[in-house]
Amino acid sequence: MKTVQNSLTTMTQMILPNDTNPLGNLLGGKLMHWIDIAAALSARKHSGKVCVTASVDEISFIEPIKLGDTVILQALVNRVFTTSLEIGVKVFREDPINDTRKHTASAYLTFVAIDNYGRPVKVAPIKTETEEEQRRYEEAEVRRRRRLETREHMESMRAQPLKSDSTSS
Amino acid sequence: MKTVQNSLTTMTQMILPNDTNPLGNLLGGKLMHWIDIAAALSARKHSGKVCVTASVDEISFIEPIKLGDTVILQALVNRVFTTSLEIGVKVFREDPINDTRKHTASAYLTFVAIDNYGRPVKVAPIKTETEEEQRRYEEAEVRRRRRLETREHMESMRAQPLKSDSTSS
Amino acid sequence: MKTVQNSLTTMTQMILPNDTNPLGNLLGGKLMHWIDIAAALSARKHSGKVCVTASVDEISFIEPIKLGDTVILQALVNRVFTTSLEIGVKVFREDPINDTRKHTASAYLTFVAIDNYGRPVKVAPIKTETEEEQRRYEEAEVRRRRRLETREHMESMRAQPLKSDSTSS
Amino acid sequence: MKTVQNSLTTMTQMILPNDTNPLGNLLGGKLMHWIDIAAALSARKHSGKVCVTASVDEISFIEPIKLGDTVILQALVNRVFTTSLEIGVKVFREDPINDTRKHTASAYLTFVAIDNYGRPVKVAPIKTETEEEQRRYEEAEVRRRRRLETREHMESMRAQPLKSDSTSS
Amino acid sequence: MKTVQNSLTTMTQMILPNDTNPLGNLLGGKLMHWIDIAAALSARKHSGKVCVTASVDEISFIEPIKLGDTVILQALVNRVFTTSLEIGVKVFREDPINDTRKHTASAYLTFVAIDNYGRPVKVAPIKTETEEEQRRYEEAEVRRRRRLETREHMESMRAQPLKSDSTSS
Amino acid sequence: MKTVQNSLTTMTQMILPNDTNPLGNLLGGKLMHWIDIAAALSARKHSGKVCVTASVDEISFIEPIKLGDTVILQALVNRVFTTSLEIGVKVFREDPINDTRKHTASAYLTFVAIDNYGRPVKVAPIKTETEEEQRRYEEAEVRRRRRLETREHMESMRAQPLKSDSTSS
Repeated sequence: MKTVQNSLTTMTQMILPNDTNPLGNLLGGKLMHWIDIAAALSARKHSGKVCVTASVDEISFIEPIKLGDTVILQALVNRVFTTSLEIGVKVFREDPINDTRKHTASAYLTFVAIDNYGRPVKVAPIKTETEEEQRRYEEAEVRRRRRLETREHMESMRAQPLKSDSTSS
Repeated sequence: MKTVQNSLTTMTQMILPNDTNPLGNLLGGKLMHWIDIAAALSARKHSGKVCVTASVDEISFIEPIKLGDTVILQALVNRVFTTSLEIGVKVFREDPINDTRKHTASAYLTFVAIDNYGRPVKVAPIKTETEEEQRRYEEAEVRRRRRLETREHMESMRAQPLKSDSTSS
Repeated sequence: MKTVQNSLTTMTQMILPNDTNPLGNLLGGKLMHWIDIAAALSARKHSGKVCVTASVDEISFIEPIKLGDTVILQALVNRVFTTSLEIGVKVFREDPINDTRKHTASAYLTFVAIDNYGRPVKVAPIKTETEEEQRRYEEAEVRRRRRLETREHMESMRAQPLKSDSTSS
Repeated sequence: MKTVQNSLTTMTQMILPNDTNPLGNLLGGKLMHWIDIAAALSARKHSGKVCVTASVDEISFIEPIKLGDTVILQALVNRVFTTSLEIGVKVFREDPINDTRKHTASAYLTFVAIDNYGRPVKVAPIKTETEEEQRRYEEAEVRRRRRLETREHMESMRAQPLKSDSTSS
Repeated sequence: MKTVQNSLTTMTQMILPNDTNPLGNLLGGKLMHWIDIAAALSARKHSGKVCVTASVDEISFIEPIKLGDTVILQALVNRVFTTSLEIGVKVFREDPINDTRKHTASAYLTFVAIDNYGRPVKVAPIKTETEEEQRRYEEAEVRRRRRLETREHMESMRAQPLKSDSTSS
Repeated sequence: MKTVQNSLTTMTQMILPNDTNPLGNLLGGKLMHWIDIAAALSARKHSGKVCVTASVDEISFIEPIKLGDTVILQALVNRVFTTSLEIGVKVFREDPINDTRKHTASAYLTFVAIDNYGRPVKVAPIKTETEEEQRRYEEAEVRRRRRLETREHMESMRAQPLKSDSTSS
C-alpha cells in the first residue's frame, strides 16, 4: 500500500508581474490554477491514473503574496474514497532575505480517477504513517459528510417558499 | 442602492489546446482562474473598489468541457457582508452546432474590498429584485454560517486526541 | 431563421501588466487578438461551423485603455454573404468607480465558414429585427463594395508607371 | 533623413498548439497580435518614439498557416503623415522541407507617435529609395483618402432614413 | 554558514501541449526557462539577494520528455565565488503509472548577486555536508577553470590567421 | 550544398513586463527560451528535418536588457557533425531613440536532426562563404573537442576518491 508521503508534490513559483493585481498582490485565480495542478499531480502519483477535478471544497487565502515573492505549494493525498481522492494543498510564502517560510493559503480539493473513456475507476487505499496524516485522514471524512449535509440543506431550502419577512440589505 | 443585475459579468472563452489535459478535457485549474477573474470583476463593479479573493467556498464541476468548446461564465454578487461579498459564478458550455447551452459548473467565492493600503473597507448593500436573487441572498447567509461551523468543528477535532480505533485504508 | 441577437457574444477581460506597453496602455495587438476570438465565436454560433478569419476590414482605436481597466467586447453577425459573414465588434471600457461604460474601439471582420477539409460551406442567412440591425446589415454591403473597389483601384495603380513627379517627404 | 529599409523589422515565429484552432490552422487573432508588435517596433525604429496603434486598415489572410510551420513577418514604414505612420506588414510561411517561402498575409496599420503624456508628436519624414518603396508610399495616400471617404459615406448613410425596400435575407 | 541543502529548490511541472514540438516532445527552450527560474530561486535563497543569470555553462538533454509527463527540477548551489554562484539543476521525468523517476537532463549555470542598482555584491560562502556535495563543490572550480581556458583559447584563435588548408564540408 | 547564410533566422522581440525580474531586467530563462526557438528554426531550415536540442554548450549574458527594449536574435548553423548541428545565436539590444544596436548575449547550442520515430538522421554538410563563417566553422570543432575532454575529466574525477584536504568555504 502506497504511503501519504509518496504522494507529496512540491511546486515552487516566482511571482511575475502578470500574476498580480494593480496593488501588486498575487491574483487568487493564478494561485488556484497552481493549486489545481499540484493537486492533480499528487492524485495521479498515488493512483497511477489521470485524475480530474470534481470539486474545490475550500481554499482560504490567509495573507497576501506579493510580486517577486517565492511561493511553495505542497500537495498530499489525505484520503481515498473508492474512485475519488481528497487532496490537501498548503501554500507557503518564502522570504528570501530572512530565509523564513510563512503559511499563506490552504486548499482541499476532490479528484476523480478516470480511464481512457472518462469513466471513474477504483483507486487503491492510502497508508497513513504519522498522527498528523491520521488526523487529516479523519478530517477528510468529516469534510465530506458536512459537504453532503450542506448540499441537502440547500436543496431542501430551494423546495420551500421564501420567507416573506426576509429583507435584503 | 445598486441591484444584483448591475453586478452581472459575462465572460466567454474558447478552449485552446493548452487549457486541456491529455484526454482533451478543460483543466480544472484553468476554469478556476477564469472563475476568479469573473468574480473579481463582478465584486469590483458592485463595490467600486479593488476586491481580493478571501476564500473559495465551493466549486462543483458537473460535467467535462472539451477542446474547442465555447464556455460562458456569469458572475453575480449574491450578498454583501460589511466588507466582504459572496459572488456566485455559473459556467455554461455552449454547443455551437445545435446552439444549446448546458450548465457545467458552479462556484461560490468570498471577496474582500480593500483600500490602497490593503485594509478592508465597507461595501454598500445590494438590492435583490427577483425571487431567484432573494433565494441566493438567503443561501449566502446559510453557506457562511455552515462554513464557520465546519471550521469550529475542525478546530475542536484538532484539540482532541485522535480516536485510537481509527484505521486508514 | 436565426436572429442577429442570437449571435451576440460578450467577452470581459481585465487588463494585466503583460497586456500593456511601457506607458501602461493596452497593446493594440492584444485587443486585436480578443476581437478576433469574440468574432470567431459569434460567427460559429450563427453558422454552426468552424469559421476562419478571411480579412480584418477595419479596426479603429478611439481612446486608450489602461492597466487595471475592465474591457467588454460585444460581437454580432452583421450580414451573411453566401459562405462568408461580416462580424461587427464593439469594445467598451468600464470605469468601476463611477460604474460607467465608454465606447473605445470598433472592428469589422470577415469570416469564412469551412468544413472539416477546409473548404468553404454555405451559411444560412440572418434575420434583422431592429432598425439598428437593419442599418448595420446595409452598411456591411457598402463596406464590401468599397473594399472591392479599393482593391481594384490599387491593382490598376500597380499596373501603371509611377508618377514621375512624386516626391517622398 | 532615415530610409524605409532602416525601419525593416523581421520577426520569426514557430506555430505552437495554442496558436491554432481545432483544425490545426493558425488563429487569425494570434497572427494579428504578432503583426501589431512587428508594426509597432518598425514605427518606433523610424520615429524614435513610443507608437500606439490608431487603426488597422486592412489585413488579408491569403492562405492558411498550419501547426509546426515557420512564419516570418516583415514590417516597413510606408509613409509618414505628420504625427502618424502607415506600416505595411507582409507575412510569409516557410516550408522547411523544400526551403521555400510563400506570401500568406498582408496588413496595413496606422500608428501614432506619442510623448510621455500620451500626446501625439511630429515624426520625421521617410526617404524612399526604390520604385517599390515609392509605389507603397503613393498607395498609402490613396488608402488614407479612400478610408476617409468611406467613413464620411457611412456617416451620411446613418444621417438618412433607412431605405424602406431593403430586405434582410 | 548556510548549508547546500538549505538552497534546495524543487519545482514540479506538468507538460502541456504548448510546451511541446510537433512530435510531442518537450521543447528544449521551455525546459531551459524552468531551469533558469529554479536556479535563480536557489541562488536567491542562499544569498538573500536578487541574482541574475551570468552564463549557462552546460545543459545536457539526456532523453526526451513527452506531453503529459510530470517533470521535477531540483536546484542546489554548488559553490560560491565572491559575487557569483554556480548552481546545478537536475531534471527528472516521473512515470506516474509505475511511480518511477528517471534523470533526463542536467544543467550548470552561473548567477551574480546584485544590489538595487544592479552592482555585484559579495555572497556568503556555503557549507557542504556530504561527500556528494563536496564533489560538486570541487567540480565547480574545475568547470570554471576550463571555461576560462576555453574562452582564452578561442580568443587566441581569433587573433591568428585562419588555417589556409581548412575545408568546410 | 546549402550555405550558412541560408540558415539565417532573425527573431525580434519586445520586452514585456512578464519577461522581467523585479529590477526590470529581462529574465535569463526567457531569453534562453527565445534562443532555443531561433536555433531550432535555423537547424530545421538547413536540415529540412525536425531538430531537437541535445545540449546548450554556452550562453553568456554580456549586459542587461530592460523592459521596453527591442531585442533581435540572429541564429546561424556553424557546422554539421553527421547527425548533429552546432548553432550560434547572437542577441542584440536595439536602442530605438538613438537607433543603435549593441551585442548583449551569445549562445552555442547543439541540435540533433530526427525522423518521425525520434531516431537521429544524417544532415547534409554546410558551405561557408566568408572568413567569418569559416572561423566559426573551425571554432565549432574546438568547442566540441574541449567539451568532450571536460566531460571525460569530470568522469575521471568522480572515479577517484575526494581530496581529503579540500575545504569548502
